[in-house]
Amino acid sequence: MIIDCHGHYTTVPQAHTDWRKAQLAGETAPAYPVISDDEIRESIEGSQLRLMRERGVDLTIFSPRASAMAHHEGTEETSRQWAAACNDLIYRVTQLFPSSFAGVCQLPQSPGVPIANSIGELRRCVEELGFVGCNLNPDPSGGHWNSAPLTDRSWYPFYEAMVELDVPAMVHVSAVTNPNFHATGSAYLNADTTAFMQFLQSDLFKDFPDLRMIIPHGGGAVPYHWGRFRGLADMLDRPPLAESVMRNVFFDTCVYHQPGINLLFEVIDLDNLMFGSEMVGAVRGIDPTTGHYFDDTRRYVEALGLSEDDRARVFEGNARRVYPRLGL
Amino acid sequence: MIIDCHGHYTTVPQAHTDWRKAQLAGETAPAYPVISDDEIRESIEGSQLRLMRERGVDLTIFSPRASAMAHHEGTEETSRQWAAACNDLIYRVTQLFPSSFAGVCQLPQSPGVPIANSIGELRRCVEELGFVGCNLNPDPSGGHWNSAPLTDRSWYPFYEAMVELDVPAMVHVSAVTNPNFHATGSAYLNADTTAFMQFLQSDLFKDFPDLRMIIPHGGGAVPYHWGRFRGLADMLDRPPLAESVMRNVFFDTCVYHQPGINLLFEVIDLDNLMFGSEMVGAVRGIDPTTGHYFDDTRRYVEALGLSEDDRARVFEGNARRVYPRLGL
Repeated sequence: MIIDCHGHYTTVPQAHTDWRKAQLAGETAPAYPVISDDEIRESIEGSQLRLMRERGVDLTIFSPRASAMAHHEGTEETSRQWAAACNDLIYRVTQLFPSSFAGVCQLPQSPGVPIANSIGELRRCVEELGFVGCNLNPDPSGGHWNSAPLTDRSWYPFYEAMVELDVPAMVHVSAVTNPNFHATGSAYLNADTTAFMQFLQSDLFKDFPDLRMIIPHGGGAVPYHWGRFRGLADMLDRPPLAESVMRNVFFDTCVYHQPGINLLFEVIDLDNLMFGSEMVGAVRGIDPTTGHYFDDTRRYVEALGLSEDDRARVFEGNARRVYPRLGL
Repeated sequence: MIIDCHGHYTTVPQAHTDWRKAQLAGETAPAYPVISDDEIRESIEGSQLRLMRERGVDLTIFSPRASAMAHHEGTEETSRQWAAACNDLIYRVTQLFPSSFAGVCQLPQSPGVPIANSIGELRRCVEELGFVGCNLNPDPSGGHWNSAPLTDRSWYPFYEAMVELDVPAMVHVSAVTNPNFHATGSAYLNADTTAFMQFLQSDLFKDFPDLRMIIPHGGGAVPYHWGRFRGLADMLDRPPLAESVMRNVFFDTCVYHQPGINLLFEVIDLDNLMFGSEMVGAVRGIDPTTGHYFDDTRRYVEALGLSEDDRARVFEGNARRVYPRLGL
């Protein structure tokens, strides 16, 4: 079985996107539109599910479109309404295609608002909708980085809820308003690297030994600079990364060329890697040097020639360990 | 001959550092202290030059300590005094050890101040002190990223001066005040990735075909995610990277483990790579897995088994092309 741990619903029915536009344009949000099961089926079958079948992916851990979370827009109430609408839509996908999708929720984060206010939606999604995890935005400002690091105690109430519910978080930023950054070209990768370094510097996982974080996009710059991070841990008198970070942090395989995947698997312990593609997502084209989609990351992983056991861990076992609510 | 394109003077005489402290503490800067040639010799011979000799490096392209530039501190006048003091000290090193060091200058950048105001110091350093390049800070705010992208026209007057003087810039941020970031652990790498994506999105090098930029630290996250960037160029209807960016952008080899260097040389054209170590710098310890210094990057490059011609390009030829003022 092949589980893709990183898929976003980027092909939502137009009415959902239109509602968001109206929500942001008006003083009060209009009523959420009626979207039929057929509309949802159509939006999934022709793209996400077709590509999953073509690539032999059985199950996608599926969350709302990351760039559209846009926690910086509007007020806390804006984000609360939008997160609920997005999560409800993901829930419907998981109900229509229960063997193909497991839900991961967007949080109603908002700049300056305590993360504790997101616990209710996390709990609703996990306990009532059967979701298996959440996406946690380390920078709800949209590229201005003016909230506290993920290791600050202000985040702890949320981590307590995650541990209680036994769900992991993928650290994932959203759209940016800062013109220095491009969402998928720099902001995402920077956030990945930033989060890892925050974890390296802190005792977060001593305080929460059962907390699990996924750093997407192959860990940002981290595996490529693995020597730098090992050296920094040493210079900063921190414990070795294997002890202080890598019991709790996992990278996906959203690295869109073979040399990157080769490095990832050479450097990072296999137990910390989970198959992911971020499909349909950031990079949708075909690589002219291979003739295949850039984000068809299964090809790169298969080309590694892993043993059957290792292959099963990367494609399925590690995900089941990190997301225990997937079941066995 | 082996040229290291990325060294900072991190072992300056104490009096220089003390002056900076006094400058920041007082309303007016005290007189700059007398520092003897012997003090400078001592600060260089026991560390930088000793390590260069041990590692077989002949010439270091040497600039003021990057993290100490701290352009966010004080006013424009603060930065003007500090940059001049730092550059004058580098000049003295180049005069005391003319065959071992070539100078690269710090700029008197300051948040909100036009970059055109840095042209005078660039010109002084190149024309009067014989420097061969400059370090350009894309975020003089210290981690808040509230100035315009490097591709904005507000930077163009400075680029015109660089082209006229025929000197390149290394894109290099400094210390951060934003607690989300660690200078050498995330801010530096993020800035590298950010700058590359800005270049990818723009026509900067169409406007300045002779402008040359070095992105340090092995290009941040870029080579590891080379497929992502090729795919983004395609998605954004930009020309291939080889045309739009890589005629003008160069990466150093400041990647502190063998797998990272292997990937860098597998993915990036050899003509875009220059040997660098950022020594004595970000990571000073010994890698327990190899028994050698993390930043002894020559070992990793030598282990590639390049042909004599390729080796000469990476260790010397490319640097002479990018920094023509080094002479032939």
